[in-house]
Amino acid sequence: MLDTIDLNASVKKKDFERALEDLDTRLGEAQRSLRKSGVPVLIVFEGWDAAGKGTAIGRLAQAFDPRGFTVHHIHPVSEPESFYPPMHRFWTRLPIRGNIAIFNHSWYRQVLDEAVDKQRLVPQLRKAYERIRVFERQLMDDGAVIVKFFLHISKGEQSKRFKELARDPVYSWKVGEQEQQRRRQYDLYEGYIEEMFRETSTPQAPWIVVPATDKRYLSLKTAETVLAAMEKALANDKIKATPQIPRVDNPKTGSLDTVDLSLAVNKEEYNKRLPELQEELRRLQHICYLQRKPVAIVFEGWDAGGKGGAIRRLTWNLDPRGYAVIPFGAPEGEEAHKHYLWRFWHALQKAGHFTIFDRSWYGRVLVERVEGFAPPQAWQRAYREINEFEADLLDSGVVLCKFWMHVSKDEQLRRFEARAKTPEKQWKITDEDWRNREKWDRYWEAVSDMLDQNSTPDAPWTIVEGDNKRHARLKVLSVTIERIRASLEIPAPRPFPDEKQSGK
Amino acid sequence: MLDTIDLNASVKKKDFERALEDLDTRLGEAQRSLRKSGVPVLIVFEGWDAAGKGTAIGRLAQAFDPRGFTVHHIHPVSEPESFYPPMHRFWTRLPIRGNIAIFNHSWYRQVLDEAVDKQRLVPQLRKAYERIRVFERQLMDDGAVIVKFFLHISKGEQSKRFKELARDPVYSWKVGEQEQQRRRQYDLYEGYIEEMFRETSTPQAPWIVVPATDKRYLSLKTAETVLAAMEKALANDKIKATPQIPRVDNPKTGSLDTVDLSLAVNKEEYNKRLPELQEELRRLQHICYLQRKPVAIVFEGWDAGGKGGAIRRLTWNLDPRGYAVIPFGAPEGEEAHKHYLWRFWHALQKAGHFTIFDRSWYGRVLVERVEGFAPPQAWQRAYREINEFEADLLDSGVVLCKFWMHVSKDEQLRRFEARAKTPEKQWKITDEDWRNREKWDRYWEAVSDMLDQNSTPDAPWTIVEGDNKRHARLKVLSVTIERIRASLEIPAPRPFPDEKQSGK
Repeated sequence: MLDTIDLNASVKKKDFERALEDLDTRLGEAQRSLRKSGVPVLIVFEGWDAAGKGTAIGRLAQAFDPRGFTVHHIHPVSEPESFYPPMHRFWTRLPIRGNIAIFNHSWYRQVLDEAVDKQRLVPQLRKAYERIRVFERQLMDDGAVIVKFFLHISKGEQSKRFKELARDPVYSWKVGEQEQQRRRQYDLYEGYIEEMFRETSTPQAPWIVVPATDKRYLSLKTAETVLAAMEKALANDKIKATPQIPRVDNPKTGSLDTVDLSLAVNKEEYNKRLPELQEELRRLQHICYLQRKPVAIVFEGWDAGGKGGAIRRLTWNLDPRGYAVIPFGAPEGEEAHKHYLWRFWHALQKAGHFTIFDRSWYGRVLVERVEGFAPPQAWQRAYREINEFEADLLDSGVVLCKFWMHVSKDEQLRRFEARAKTPEKQWKITDEDWRNREKWDRYWEAVSDMLDQNSTPDAPWTIVEGDNKRHARLKVLSVTIERIRASLEIPAPRPFPDEKQSGK
Repeated sequence: MLDTIDLNASVKKKDFERALEDLDTRLGEAQRSLRKSGVPVLIVFEGWDAAGKGTAIGRLAQAFDPRGFTVHHIHPVSEPESFYPPMHRFWTRLPIRGNIAIFNHSWYRQVLDEAVDKQRLVPQLRKAYERIRVFERQLMDDGAVIVKFFLHISKGEQSKRFKELARDPVYSWKVGEQEQQRRRQYDLYEGYIEEMFRETSTPQAPWIVVPATDKRYLSLKTAETVLAAMEKALANDKIKATPQIPRVDNPKTGSLDTVDLSLAVNKEEYNKRLPELQEELRRLQHICYLQRKPVAIVFEGWDAGGKGGAIRRLTWNLDPRGYAVIPFGAPEGEEAHKHYLWRFWHALQKAGHFTIFDRSWYGRVLVERVEGFAPPQAWQRAYREINEFEADLLDSGVVLCKFWMHVSKDEQLRRFEARAKTPEKQWKITDEDWRNREKWDRYWEAVSDMLDQNSTPDAPWTIVEGDNKRHARLKVLSVTIERIRASLEIPAPRPFPDEKQSGK
């Protein structure tokens, strides 16, 4: 593909200025219209070093109202970034709906550099590109426009530019040893870049290779392409067909009908077991920290199902430096203006820490489905999106525990009434809880579908029999311990005193 | 102070459990009430290593609803953090009003460690504590409650705990070389800690030294103290007297009455000078990057005063990787629930980059004063707070340029009418602009006070005569260039190729 590009494409100064004036006006208009429609735009600039990414971005930025766009400069993965799944740093940088994000380098850079530097094996590379395709698809399904540029110059042109930059002490840092090394590997990179095009050019988000020898041509071509994409989005009626949802192989979490709610633990056993389990979890927490093992624990359940009490016992003895309990209600502010998965990516703690989700991304297929906050095509699509999200977590080593806190309808009523009667517990019971209770059957259906669709072999749901609180709390602790133990090397290896200084 | 503390204070298990049950309930209630009142609470835990900060924080955290508190673990300054003023990492971590932030270590840690490690000179230490007193005062003036604990154990007790921790491979990383080094310096630290108490114990935010030999006593005492502070805040009627505002020595920015609005530049000269200045600024931008020099440029001015056009010319030739234009309107979402300075700390780019503020913290003494969004005691207090904020920036090396884009009332009218007539400019003119125009005289008074109060010798205001756009744009560029040049070593020193890898 690269060798079919006419690198001599150029534009005369006069034509350039006239065309640009018109383009700037129309880009500004398109920005204001897309802002109103709430369409987020992501513009990716990749390309050879010294191809002029800075120039093209600077030029494009002039057309836009700064209230509404951000330029992100993506560097090689830093140490703190390495403690998260690879896509974390892009999810957390998503523009809110109606805004424009320009990426100077992007999710492609690291994959490409690692492919060349480490001669990555084909399966790993495939996996990385698959992850990127999923990421872009999920954003576009949510209404985003994605434009991807690769700025192309010849090997000779690049050498010439490197020499010019190196001559001036103010600019010579731009062509340091890393850049020189990449320049020498031009041919090797070329092969990998062609592969990147093949793997990630999709009909919705194709790669646009832009000849960048002539800076005016480059600026004009990028501006025109972005404008065309924005205007196309404006013309779209934006009603999307529901994609076929691949059904997952259910590892038999069991159905809600067969949950044995008579399971109970007596007080004596509870008082003995609870501190033992809490002490054990505290030890595991420290081993997780030493081994940089991330742990994510998801709590969903009926109102008054015992989530709060279970979380309190789970964290009772943990070192507060190593865990965070993050409660999720209806999305507010920024959250409401981004992809629904954004806030969960954002909340994720770094490797070595526990993230405890008090309600979670499953809200999409529970409350948002039942209450109609998400249209059917959105929540139906979510089963797959959630499995993809969790696969990203698992791939990066996360230990994932998912608890459904289950109580009978009678037990829920008893707890509601107890709350209403006890003054210091009254704040825990609201009219909304009573309203939700009336929709018990519709929630039941949604929960059943969720257990069915989102119990993957590596991320199964655990149904916690919750009528007896003591049983429920011990089960949460012991399942968590069991899953963590299965993923660690135990007994703990030698401590790493270095870790302390660098990470914590 | 430390040697007067009774380190044998302890509590029996039975008394402890009974007391704590009651405390937990009341802490939960206080949290819900303060949430309603919108009072933010900051709880600081400092103390000897192994004194039990983790335990005390963990225990306290159990009393609170996780929807509303966050634990921040403050580590020694990391490399990315070193590219900002010292208080940046605390300003950006402020809780929203009504929430609780617990700091495991805080703004005190770095000062104390540096005092011991680098035997910091007295003036530097004084300055650091002055900065902290200002920080805490500004937050408390905004309604915040601050509680500061120092957890105290004897030298012998600490040694005993270190030995226990070192014995277990799972916990031994907690007493690494750094901690051992600090333990050996116990006596040296003691002197500096006493000084820290003297310098930063204020009537509103006194240090509470807690004997931490007995963990139950520690948990109880911290919970009781926090509860008392929260209940006191609830009892407060929260009406604060307006503090006396120290007037600053006006370095004669000049008054608005004497601005010479006839200043103009002809087209020929403009077309010649503009690209020269833009090229010069681009070079300076790169030198700033190499020398890690932070630059902040503030634009305020009349509606249609030419801010947008001036910013566009200023940034025209800059490398987009090195600057950000951040527009500020009325505070929204999270911004509206935090101290008004928070969003400006948050927006600040790291050292080596330009931050261009399209409107700024001066909104407090302009629009918020004129429209009555801030009560008089709040905007009157702001003159001093702004000078303190800017002093923090200047102390950390920031080059600060502040432009007031000034136009005559007639010229403003001409521009409003031109915008209303030109279809592609109509979005730039709103009813609000017309309403603001009617308040011209009240804005005039507010602007005059601002120029008077906030033109400090190192951060003077520049009034830009804006009736002639060409003059205004060249002036903004040349003043910026001049102020940057005055703060750099020029010509540029040898390039640092290393910087590229580590920072960018």
